[in-house]
Amino acid sequence: MDALLANPGCTERTRVRRLPEHAVRDRSALHQLLDAALVGHLAAADETGQPYVLPVAYARSGESVLFHGSSASRLFRLCAAGVPVCFTVTELDGLVLARSAFESSMNYRSAMVLGHCTVLHGRTKELGLRQIGEHLMPGRWEEIRAPSAQELKATAVLELPLDECSLKVSDGGPTDDSADLALPVWAGRLPLVRQWGEPVPADDLAPEHARIPEYIDRWRQRIS
Amino acid sequence: MDALLANPGCTERTRVRRLPEHAVRDRSALHQLLDAALVGHLAAADETGQPYVLPVAYARSGESVLFHGSSASRLFRLCAAGVPVCFTVTELDGLVLARSAFESSMNYRSAMVLGHCTVLHGRTKELGLRQIGEHLMPGRWEEIRAPSAQELKATAVLELPLDECSLKVSDGGPTDDSADLALPVWAGRLPLVRQWGEPVPADDLAPEHARIPEYIDRWRQRIS
Repeated sequence: MDALLANPGCTERTRVRRLPEHAVRDRSALHQLLDAALVGHLAAADETGQPYVLPVAYARSGESVLFHGSSASRLFRLCAAGVPVCFTVTELDGLVLARSAFESSMNYRSAMVLGHCTVLHGRTKELGLRQIGEHLMPGRWEEIRAPSAQELKATAVLELPLDECSLKVSDGGPTDDSADLALPVWAGRLPLVRQWGEPVPADDLAPEHARIPEYIDRWRQRIS
Repeated sequence: MDALLANPGCTERTRVRRLPEHAVRDRSALHQLLDAALVGHLAAADETGQPYVLPVAYARSGESVLFHGSSASRLFRLCAAGVPVCFTVTELDGLVLARSAFESSMNYRSAMVLGHCTVLHGRTKELGLRQIGEHLMPGRWEEIRAPSAQELKATAVLELPLDECSLKVSDGGPTDDSADLALPVWAGRLPLVRQWGEPVPADDLAPEHARIPEYIDRWRQRIS
């Protein structure tokens, strides 16, 4: 079966060329990565071909991703003007210690989305901001002050459809050449784990607000 | 004093526009971030202006960064052809829980480097591969098999000078509007910590090679 047909989000531009056996054509795996990570890297090029890549907060909303940033940001103005963009989300999962330098590598999950952004306005924009807030800090939005009209004006919200995308996953241990197996060196993998530390109260937190919200306990359990 | 003069790596293109108070003009802080992180995001645009952003292994080498990747990779071929590139390294350090959605944010360190890559060859290329290997897995290079001629041919090593760059650091707790301080909600920050898990031996590891190298213990202590 043709790989491009098997994966509706895969085009010639997003086909995984390097180590294609690591390409993942499972749409739910793409969603899971986008839902698990907190930061992605958004890129657009200016008229000279110079790309700019910045970390952005985002959320998946169905078959799109939403970004927010300053309305005055150069990158967001480029994206809002409709230039082609690339959005990449990578989670590093560990080191792969092979017996050769060539086979030594990293375990990771990485999604890449190509396309054009549209700018959200009005109620859709407010909803988008809420989705990004809920992605980063689930359960908190109801408790905090919603954006004012002035704050909304200072913030741009962009939507990028998940139409043209790829997912590459590297996991497991080293795959050494058989000739290297006898080398006298340990081989295996070293997992990298992310954890939330202890919450640190703000200096100006009033004693009557010192109780740590329950949702923070839930965040500390959900991390991958 | 002019900020551009104060920071030799800062140009109009890398001036931090959004929240300029978070711009860091300390070159050693830039080096520290590049030395601490394991993965960066490298971008180049094709002739249609479409950028591609991929995670890459790298190492800092003095006042340059070095990348390695497949000689056949589209991104590496674009970079090798001399198009303008952007390399961004981001470490996420935690969540900032403010009393308003607008002030809620993340703590992070992010470096951006603009410029043009050069392709390394011969002895310089081999040395570059070693530097990248030592950055990811310090102490291991001496123990593993060095790249063969065929493996060297399949690998491209690129150098990007740290001439035009920026560093942005966000740390500390929330800075809420004074009018929001009375809101009945916890505020503060939640640190994100990275840790190495337990080493997992390869399935094909011979019993006589099962002793875990001491350098892995050192890696587990160095992580930020």
